[in-house]
Amino acid sequence: MSAVEPRRVIATVCLSGTLEDKLAAAAAAGFDGVELFENDLVVSAASPAEIRQRCADLGLTIDLYQPFRDFEAVPPDVLRANLRRAERKFDVMEQLGVDLVLVCSTVSPDAVDDDELAAEQLRLLAERAAARGMRVAYEALAWGRFVNTYEHSWRIVRRADHPALGVCLDSFHVLSRGGDPALIRTIPGEKLFFLQLADAPQLDMDVLQWSRHHRLFPGQGAFDLPTFVGNVLSTGYRGPLSLEVFNDVFRQADPKPAALDAMRSLRLLEEQVGFPVAAPAPELSGHAFAELTVDEVAGAKLAETLAALGFERTGEHGSKPVQLWEQGGARVLLNAKAETPGTAVIGALAVETGDPSSSALRADAMHAPVLPRTRGPQEANLASVAAPDGTEVFFCSDSWLADFSGAGASPVPGLGITGIDHVALTQPFDHFDEAALFYRSVVGLRPEPIAEYAAPFGMVRTRGVVDPTGSVRIALTGTLVRRGEWAPAVRDPQHIAFACEDVLAAARALRERGAPVLRVPDNYYDDLDARLDLDRELLVQLRANSVLYDRDEHGEYLHVCTEILGSRIFFELVQRIGGYAGYGVPNAPVRMAAHRRQRLAADG
Amino acid sequence: MSAVEPRRVIATVCLSGTLEDKLAAAAAAGFDGVELFENDLVVSAASPAEIRQRCADLGLTIDLYQPFRDFEAVPPDVLRANLRRAERKFDVMEQLGVDLVLVCSTVSPDAVDDDELAAEQLRLLAERAAARGMRVAYEALAWGRFVNTYEHSWRIVRRADHPALGVCLDSFHVLSRGGDPALIRTIPGEKLFFLQLADAPQLDMDVLQWSRHHRLFPGQGAFDLPTFVGNVLSTGYRGPLSLEVFNDVFRQADPKPAALDAMRSLRLLEEQVGFPVAAPAPELSGHAFAELTVDEVAGAKLAETLAALGFERTGEHGSKPVQLWEQGGARVLLNAKAETPGTAVIGALAVETGDPSSSALRADAMHAPVLPRTRGPQEANLASVAAPDGTEVFFCSDSWLADFSGAGASPVPGLGITGIDHVALTQPFDHFDEAALFYRSVVGLRPEPIAEYAAPFGMVRTRGVVDPTGSVRIALTGTLVRRGEWAPAVRDPQHIAFACEDVLAAARALRERGAPVLRVPDNYYDDLDARLDLDRELLVQLRANSVLYDRDEHGEYLHVCTEILGSRIFFELVQRIGGYAGYGVPNAPVRMAAHRRQRLAADG
Repeated sequence: MSAVEPRRVIATVCLSGTLEDKLAAAAAAGFDGVELFENDLVVSAASPAEIRQRCADLGLTIDLYQPFRDFEAVPPDVLRANLRRAERKFDVMEQLGVDLVLVCSTVSPDAVDDDELAAEQLRLLAERAAARGMRVAYEALAWGRFVNTYEHSWRIVRRADHPALGVCLDSFHVLSRGGDPALIRTIPGEKLFFLQLADAPQLDMDVLQWSRHHRLFPGQGAFDLPTFVGNVLSTGYRGPLSLEVFNDVFRQADPKPAALDAMRSLRLLEEQVGFPVAAPAPELSGHAFAELTVDEVAGAKLAETLAALGFERTGEHGSKPVQLWEQGGARVLLNAKAETPGTAVIGALAVETGDPSSSALRADAMHAPVLPRTRGPQEANLASVAAPDGTEVFFCSDSWLADFSGAGASPVPGLGITGIDHVALTQPFDHFDEAALFYRSVVGLRPEPIAEYAAPFGMVRTRGVVDPTGSVRIALTGTLVRRGEWAPAVRDPQHIAFACEDVLAAARALRERGAPVLRVPDNYYDDLDARLDLDRELLVQLRANSVLYDRDEHGEYLHVCTEILGSRIFFELVQRIGGYAGYGVPNAPVRMAAHRRQRLAADG
Repeated sequence: MSAVEPRRVIATVCLSGTLEDKLAAAAAAGFDGVELFENDLVVSAASPAEIRQRCADLGLTIDLYQPFRDFEAVPPDVLRANLRRAERKFDVMEQLGVDLVLVCSTVSPDAVDDDELAAEQLRLLAERAAARGMRVAYEALAWGRFVNTYEHSWRIVRRADHPALGVCLDSFHVLSRGGDPALIRTIPGEKLFFLQLADAPQLDMDVLQWSRHHRLFPGQGAFDLPTFVGNVLSTGYRGPLSLEVFNDVFRQADPKPAALDAMRSLRLLEEQVGFPVAAPAPELSGHAFAELTVDEVAGAKLAETLAALGFERTGEHGSKPVQLWEQGGARVLLNAKAETPGTAVIGALAVETGDPSSSALRADAMHAPVLPRTRGPQEANLASVAAPDGTEVFFCSDSWLADFSGAGASPVPGLGITGIDHVALTQPFDHFDEAALFYRSVVGLRPEPIAEYAAPFGMVRTRGVVDPTGSVRIALTGTLVRRGEWAPAVRDPQHIAFACEDVLAAARALRERGAPVLRVPDNYYDDLDARLDLDRELLVQLRANSVLYDRDEHGEYLHVCTEILGSRIFFELVQRIGGYAGYGVPNAPVRMAAHRRQRLAADG
């Protein structure tokens, strides 16, 4: 593919706010230009000339004015009105300094099914545009009344045969209908005037509603955009790659992170179609550590619990109030920098890479916010970036351990913990899809399918992001609807799940040690018995030790949780038997209800 | 129809929270019983016997245990496991004291398409149930693998021919597939073991996803439930009317108001099928008044603006800090009881009825929370209830005016305002559908279709609720997604729209009086010109006076807004020409952006 980077454009309709908010966010995220959505202009107090100036000041071009609807294949009186309407819009475009207008295939009851007439009238429009130095990009809406495939729009454009008339391709309109993107190669690149990109989850619903509410940025949905874009580029198209995403969540989310999310999606797509983006994500070899940010009180409780879990306090940081706790390959840092009483949150997670500087380079190229860091002169230089939920993500080799000096031994024997299995982060509502894309593009993790389930306080979805070798797993959880006042006792719990060789034995030991193990109700085990007909003795042991159980076609999963410690942390011990690759999702509602009971009991 | 009231039941899955939360909410809303959703029990720490006792203490029966899935038409080894599973669930039911279990038609890959086998195995299950004094209700899921219509489930039940096996009907499963409810009359009432009711919006999407996420309480969607229930009752069915609604919003909303909403939906449905519910809603003759709750500062600003709008201050309340302002038939009360600086909200709206006591009786029967009221010995006894958003709704004849003594005259001439056209209330996210049902069931207003549109800060929906004569209109607005931190400058604005004989003339007068008219940008008028090709002079006048314009197939609409006054109030003057029946929804985004500009400018 070409090594010349494409122009990166975003439609203002992708972002929330006034036009001013949108332009500022697009510029800050590094976009080269925007598609100006008409309604964003209509509600603005700035004149088109002022918008043009604002864009210039921000370093943004306006690449497309859109949409112009219901133009073609109409009776003469409607055509007259439509041409008048077009001239008024050309006036606006002139002041904006934009020379390309998007015309969507008609959905008007005034239109007729007549390709010849459509071509003739579009040619007329192209002549009017050309007279003003402008061009027209004709797009087949997936729900167009007569024209709803790109092949059809191209036939009409070809028939109209005017240099100022070309095709606009929109990946959603093509892929939502199961269109074959290979045929795109039959269109000459110079007749492709514009390329709009959107991904979407695979939904079985009315295509108009799907398009209006559920589009996603590339890489967040189910569409094969690399193949689609590859076909477009092979025609010789060298115009912008432009994002046009209608999404209920993005429409009301802070436009600044949303624009960064959009940019990341575009950079990843560029990489997939052959444009080099800094370094590829280096291979990972595991979780280096997870760091908990705590205050003194919660820190003491967590330290006590880590000790009960068999962790050894192996080090103190040279210059910061940070303890290192280890067992097997699992390392937890307790950083007592929090001032709010009771604070216990996952402040950072660290992945092991053989090449931290490549990781940092890639993170920067993928627009991950690099975090400033104070360090002593002898301390390891750890690169870190902020994930969408604010969690700090470190890329490190093992040199960071040198920052810690030895400390006391563990009071009790270990429990067979061998490492961190996964870190589970509850995502803020607006950032669920953004988070998966962040870990994919920046860290090189692969998003797993989304599991959706009914929890006691609302619908929840979970997806893992996992490195190709399975050594790094992060479980992302979010609600389907943003929660209001009515909510569980613990908001947005987070946890660290430790891989354990024998969860039942560990759970027994925890019980003996009086550790704060989360109590699982009998009803759960009665249901487990009814559903799975487990071995009697196993069921007795699970029940006696509050161990949760799941199985799939590949294997089994045993897991036990602690109570919530501090504001929103718990630990989990997990045992994967056979090829089980999930996270015990069917048990999540049981755990959530139990944590609520724990908290209500503590409060009451 | 029968005059004996049916038992009112709600499935625990309709409500949010732990089982304890759900049972408490159902009992408080006056339900007689519940369908116990298995997962609600599984996550509970209370034993089945304890749940039974809790229900008894709350005056609730448990009418159904559900669901039991994937039972029938399977090979012998799977049948053995399924019967074992059933016996374990019968154990649980025994402890719960419930004798009816719901069996859903299978979706299992283990099942075969064999009605004879299905009937034989269901008969076996019924025998096992009967041996324990229990019964089985077989339900056709709309997405059942082989059995997905109620006619088919009834054929299998008939073939199985066991007294402990009957049919469960679910309105969603029947009506979502466009099933004919008239055929229900071919099923003997005694073989209808249970009736589940859900409404839904008419969506064109996968029926499983539609069912899981978008069900609504009866009267909130598009289904014809009165006809459906009428057919069921005509069979002689005298079992419970039970609500089973899976809805993403209800699943995470406070269960107490949600249960009341559910109860209201059931009472309305009962009335529609012939069970008398107190008095019918009396005919209304208009808005009696709207009351603004203000603090001193916002009150002064609102008084000043009402004066500029040509209102006359005609009275003071005898015992409260309330001013009466009048023009034509429009009456606004300013109640200076707020303490928070800047407060300006619609505290109450009042509708005129010839029979306030019937209205109050009906409101009470419809479970509207009746509000306490302090009044002086000579004052009118106004019945009032709380709408879901907390707005006080009064039912009154004109006697309330006697509570006010005369006050000063208006400083300027009137502006041709003839009354209140509508009151517009932004609804809390969780209460949009509930609000429409409230005004329908309690006040007797008719919900209009929902209009959905993209506003600068997210998707918004609006629907009017209007009395049959068009004399009382309330416009309800809500967001599709609950807003987070990123949001417009004014949250949840409310307004009173006054009917005006000549909005253009009024707007000119307002400009001359220096009233705080909301400035509408030029871009809006340029777009209006392009779209509608209005008369030149009209366009000039609209533009010069910041008057908004809309038209539909029935007529035209001119409207002008004030700036936001105090925390979240503005006034609007509206002029309906011809049969225009809307609210100028296409102009709402323009108005929202303009209000944000006004606020940002004011903030500095």
